[in-house]
Amino acid sequence: DVDLREVAERTAGFSGADLANLANEAAILAARHNKTKINQIELLESIEKVLLGPERKSHILSKKEKKIAAYHEAGHALVSSLIPDTEPVRKISIIARGMAAGYTLKMPAEEKKIITKSEFLAELAVLLGGYCAEKLKFNEITTGAANDLEKASDLARRLVKEYGMSALGPISFGEKEELVFLGKEISEQRNYSEKVAAKIDEEVKKFIIEAENRAKKLLTKKLALLDKIAKTLIEKETIEKEEFEKLIKDNS
Amino acid sequence: DVDLREVAERTAGFSGADLANLANEAAILAARHNKTKINQIELLESIEKVLLGPERKSHILSKKEKKIAAYHEAGHALVSSLIPDTEPVRKISIIARGMAAGYTLKMPAEEKKIITKSEFLAELAVLLGGYCAEKLKFNEITTGAANDLEKASDLARRLVKEYGMSALGPISFGEKEELVFLGKEISEQRNYSEKVAAKIDEEVKKFIIEAENRAKKLLTKKLALLDKIAKTLIEKETIEKEEFEKLIKDNS
Amino acid sequence: DVDLREVAERTAGFSGADLANLANEAAILAARHNKTKINQIELLESIEKVLLGPERKSHILSKKEKKIAAYHEAGHALVSSLIPDTEPVRKISIIARGMAAGYTLKMPAEEKKIITKSEFLAELAVLLGGYCAEKLKFNEITTGAANDLEKASDLARRLVKEYGMSALGPISFGEKEELVFLGKEISEQRNYSEKVAAKIDEEVKKFIIEAENRAKKLLTKKLALLDKIAKTLIEKETIEKEEFEKLIKDNS
Amino acid sequence: DVDLREVAERTAGFSGADLANLANEAAILAARHNKTKINQIELLESIEKVLLGPERKSHILSKKEKKIAAYHEAGHALVSSLIPDTEPVRKISIIARGMAAGYTLKMPAEEKKIITKSEFLAELAVLLGGYCAEKLKFNEITTGAANDLEKASDLARRLVKEYGMSALGPISFGEKEELVFLGKEISEQRNYSEKVAAKIDEEVKKFIIEAENRAKKLLTKKLALLDKIAKTLIEKETIEKEEFEKLIKDNS
Amino acid sequence: DVDLREVAERTAGFSGADLANLANEAAILAARHNKTKINQIELLESIEKVLLGPERKSHILSKKEKKIAAYHEAGHALVSSLIPDTEPVRKISIIARGMAAGYTLKMPAEEKKIITKSEFLAELAVLLGGYCAEKLKFNEITTGAANDLEKASDLARRLVKEYGMSALGPISFGEKEELVFLGKEISEQRNYSEKVAAKIDEEVKKFIIEAENRAKKLLTKKLALLDKIAKTLIEKETIEKEEFEKLIKDNS
Amino acid sequence: DVDLREVAERTAGFSGADLANLANEAAILAARHNKTKINQIELLESIEKVLLGPERKSHILSKKEKKIAAYHEAGHALVSSLIPDTEPVRKISIIARGMAAGYTLKMPAEEKKIITKSEFLAELAVLLGGYCAEKLKFNEITTGAANDLEKASDLARRLVKEYGMSALGPISFGEKEELVFLGKEISEQRNYSEKVAAKIDEEVKKFIIEAENRAKKLLTKKLALLDKIAKTLIEKETIEKEEFEKLIKDNS
Repeated sequence: DVDLREVAERTAGFSGADLANLANEAAILAARHNKTKINQIELLESIEKVLLGPERKSHILSKKEKKIAAYHEAGHALVSSLIPDTEPVRKISIIARGMAAGYTLKMPAEEKKIITKSEFLAELAVLLGGYCAEKLKFNEITTGAANDLEKASDLARRLVKEYGMSALGPISFGEKEELVFLGKEISEQRNYSEKVAAKIDEEVKKFIIEAENRAKKLLTKKLALLDKIAKTLIEKETIEKEEFEKLIKDNS
Repeated sequence: DVDLREVAERTAGFSGADLANLANEAAILAARHNKTKINQIELLESIEKVLLGPERKSHILSKKEKKIAAYHEAGHALVSSLIPDTEPVRKISIIARGMAAGYTLKMPAEEKKIITKSEFLAELAVLLGGYCAEKLKFNEITTGAANDLEKASDLARRLVKEYGMSALGPISFGEKEELVFLGKEISEQRNYSEKVAAKIDEEVKKFIIEAENRAKKLLTKKLALLDKIAKTLIEKETIEKEEFEKLIKDNS
Repeated sequence: DVDLREVAERTAGFSGADLANLANEAAILAARHNKTKINQIELLESIEKVLLGPERKSHILSKKEKKIAAYHEAGHALVSSLIPDTEPVRKISIIARGMAAGYTLKMPAEEKKIITKSEFLAELAVLLGGYCAEKLKFNEITTGAANDLEKASDLARRLVKEYGMSALGPISFGEKEELVFLGKEISEQRNYSEKVAAKIDEEVKKFIIEAENRAKKLLTKKLALLDKIAKTLIEKETIEKEEFEKLIKDNS
Repeated sequence: DVDLREVAERTAGFSGADLANLANEAAILAARHNKTKINQIELLESIEKVLLGPERKSHILSKKEKKIAAYHEAGHALVSSLIPDTEPVRKISIIARGMAAGYTLKMPAEEKKIITKSEFLAELAVLLGGYCAEKLKFNEITTGAANDLEKASDLARRLVKEYGMSALGPISFGEKEELVFLGKEISEQRNYSEKVAAKIDEEVKKFIIEAENRAKKLLTKKLALLDKIAKTLIEKETIEKEEFEKLIKDNS
Repeated sequence: DVDLREVAERTAGFSGADLANLANEAAILAARHNKTKINQIELLESIEKVLLGPERKSHILSKKEKKIAAYHEAGHALVSSLIPDTEPVRKISIIARGMAAGYTLKMPAEEKKIITKSEFLAELAVLLGGYCAEKLKFNEITTGAANDLEKASDLARRLVKEYGMSALGPISFGEKEELVFLGKEISEQRNYSEKVAAKIDEEVKKFIIEAENRAKKLLTKKLALLDKIAKTLIEKETIEKEEFEKLIKDNS
Repeated sequence: DVDLREVAERTAGFSGADLANLANEAAILAARHNKTKINQIELLESIEKVLLGPERKSHILSKKEKKIAAYHEAGHALVSSLIPDTEPVRKISIIARGMAAGYTLKMPAEEKKIITKSEFLAELAVLLGGYCAEKLKFNEITTGAANDLEKASDLARRLVKEYGMSALGPISFGEKEELVFLGKEISEQRNYSEKVAAKIDEEVKKFIIEAENRAKKLLTKKLALLDKIAKTLIEKETIEKEEFEKLIKDNS
């Protein structure tokens, strides 16, 4: 009853502890379902719980928030589907999980050891898809994008400072040092001048603005499809992979 | 005897500890009132105590201070009532509580998960309402606004640095790091250049000055109503929601 | 035998520990005076001891120092008496107490909860009164003003950074953080740019220079009265409230 | 059965702990091979394990990643073989070891006590060989070069700050201080001005850009040979010294 | 046998611990001299030991060093005698004590509570007297002045930052904070901008350069007298107050 | 059998612990030599061991490294012999000791208490002698000079910041503070502005460049003698004082 290939694909990147946690959650779930064996359904549900934290059904969104969350997640998913170099969308949801009002789940088919600049640029555009969708639809910015902006900014900084992917060239900036007496804490020692710090900021800004423009342009062109995905989400709260792919195909 | 809906609305955002505290305070109060059951009145009074600290009747304001505090709180309340995107005013008071000479109580009807830029801009204007009312009426600035300025400045910084709501665009600035060995202490690591720091300061200033101008303009237009609210406050020390709404309606 | 109103006025701002300390000192003093009850005289003397530390009669000033101290304290007292928004002078002395060569005692009639910008500007001018009097009389600057300059500079910084009272507007600068592991230590985290730091310095300077000019102008106009107060001080070492007020009145 | 000279050459730079570790690994390996004595083969395999960490066969690269890794390692090896002042390449591999997707093994024939600027410049070009090969072949930059960039940048900084090898002349910049209470932690105290910090950054950039140009130029000229090495690597996963030298010779 | 007035004058500024130490040293000395009572001679010798540390006769200066030390100390003493607002010179010596190659002893006739800017400017010139004498005589600068330069620079910084004695006006710069967990350590928190830091440096420089010019000018005018004092010092190693005053008087 | 004068001269600057260490080493050595008394030879050998660490005969230099080390040490020794104000060279060696590939031993005839700027400038030129010799002979820079550059740069910084020997004048920059909780750690608190920091860097650079030019000029003029010393060193590994002086005399 278990499709191991699907489980393996969806748990790519899991640590040993994550896998132990997963087995445990699936067993609990099977017990709740009065089963003596774990089936695919318990495994898949547990994978999401391990990845995103428990669903928070009590954490109900207002109508206005639901609409914002729907367009936000639809933005991520649509940009992702329109850009090559991205992994397929597996699930979109506006049921609150952990701290987030909604989520879009993409999982790599296999664990990557090497990531290219093109893939990172695609990731940046997808991350800004939620922000752009909200702005486009409501002419408004909300706190819902804060986590995406943090991730995108951190990633852009890494492109410039660690991966030599900006106009600053193949130089590494900033020494990481583990502060042993503080446990796991890692702090960066600034080993460059203010002048270089300002150039790094400019390159980071360029990456973010390019990603924003890319996402905005794609969403503007496919506004009707964005509306459709968002409306489906408001209605059903969750869209699975197959349905999402059908939505995209029917509207291309 | 208990209107649970009202209690729920007024305790939105309460933690478990706050709720336990509330139950305790209400029980003490009921005992003092020689009751064997907690009623609505004990619950409402206890909610305020939990929210604001105990009343400090001994902490008496001078006549001059009372007048300043009254105009200050009237400023907050009036700006709030004149701006859409704000929650209704529930209570205004110039009885000292905790460190404050007075307070204006607004509680959201429901817990928000997503907050919009418009709502934040409204909050900024309300926060500056007290400062503007004092300046308008007495052509004077006092220490009474210090806490409002701190809150408004912190909020404006967050709009720029965390929420991508300023001209600097959808970039996140500053890495927060929890210093584990210091307990709950959270410190920000400046991961940007002096040049960007200066731009952040400019954007923060723009938000504050816009909010000040918005509050000033609204209060200038409704100066008679400001006087009325302030005078009522000086006289009665506390204005409840219904009375405040009537004051607004009668004078529009 | 005890005028409680006078005691209450003079102990405004006292903590519980200060009051316990006061009771103790007064009891010791009464015992020394072979009394079985504490009278007003013991209370008043003890209030000063609690406020300023014990008199240091052994700590004798040279003739030159006495003259400087007298003009310094006369400067504070005279500027205070010439400016509205200040509390009345209660005592001037050039008997060394604690670290200071002399002191001017002003106590608020009541504890203030709200302080206005005008009151702060008056306080700044009074603080610079000693410095200006020395400069005016001896064309000399001494270490006697160091503590006043520190207080004035700290206050001016607060006007700019916490109270929104300068041209920088109603913005709060600098996050205070309690470093829990260091006990009571409070350190400020600079959350603004060098550019703003320089503007803050300019505004602080403006406040101090304005206060200096105000004090200088007032003392220059009343130089004869300054001489009179200083000479009286040199002669008597201490001037009480009534005598000071008479000096002012007789010479206006 | 043991060629001690070869073992000595390949373990140049090993610490006592490394050698103990080596003996241990070789003994385990010999036991696994059902031998009662350690032979050359166990020693050589163990040397690599001590140097690079265990092979991670489970850590399988995708086809695309394999191709990138092959060109990356071929880039290092080819640049190394084309530059004087570098040690001979001993092994190239695209079997993941530790964190790396592949590796190129060069070991000095003897431990060096003095290193010249020419040798360092050669090392910089070799370090950038992987980055340049990827860019040249795929017009793409990947995370695979991050570790090389960090090493190259650190080395370039040392040339400027410790060895007096840049246009800044024979001056040492930055005081190293061992923070005793943090154990082995070494932090640098910046004992120079922002102006010098900016000049150091410029010199570092010059070193890196020169090394990049040198590697790029060499690889562009020998593109066919680069293809050949990469293809052989994709096919065989590992190229030993003799085969590599034959590849170079046959294609010169 | 004891002139208490002289002892009191020379021990001005002594702490209780210093006085206890003094009594002890004098008793030891008297015992060594086979006396049963402490006389003036033991007291005076012990005062110097408490003030300066034990004589280091083993620490013998070379002929060249002796000459440098003699001119250095003669420089201090001569500048001191030529400037009003300074205390009389009590002793000059080129016998090494503690870390210093020589010393010039000046003790205030009475403990000062208030110090004027004029007195500080005189002190700065005296501190630079040694440096200037060496430069004037040998056209050379030596490490012998390092301690004087540190004292002079610290003092000049205080004039600017604590006492309001520079062109920056009556503003206090820098918050001192006691770091409780570090014991007695006091560190200054820079509460001003780079722009002000640069102005402080300029003012400090002005004070030091003025003092240098003042000392240089005085010594240049009295070069013969400088030679005479230095030669006497080389010959006798120590010059007491009376002899020094005679030297000055005979050569004016 | 012991020439105490020679021992005293060569141990100038030794601490008590060093002397204890010396006695110990000499006793061990005498025991190894089967002697019952320590002779001059054991004392001299032990002095070097205490000064420089044990010889590392196993740490053998390659032919190329030997040549570089020989010219490096010859550079130090030759510059030293050509400049007045330096102590005589006692020994040159290219036998590795501690971390260094070679060493040049100069010991002051007597402990200095006062050091002049001329002596420091001579020391700077000697320190740069190794670097210049390598550059002159091989047109190459190596890691062998790193320690010299660090010492020279530290010394140049002290000339500027502690001894008032640069164009910045007799001002002391930087407060040293002992961090008691870190044991012996000494950290400098920067008490000056960026502007002054940049000026300090310029002055440091001037000192280093002047020293480099001085050493270069001297070595260029005496290139044949440099070759001779280096060749002798390569041949004999160690040159003692008398032989060195003969080499210099024979070739002047």
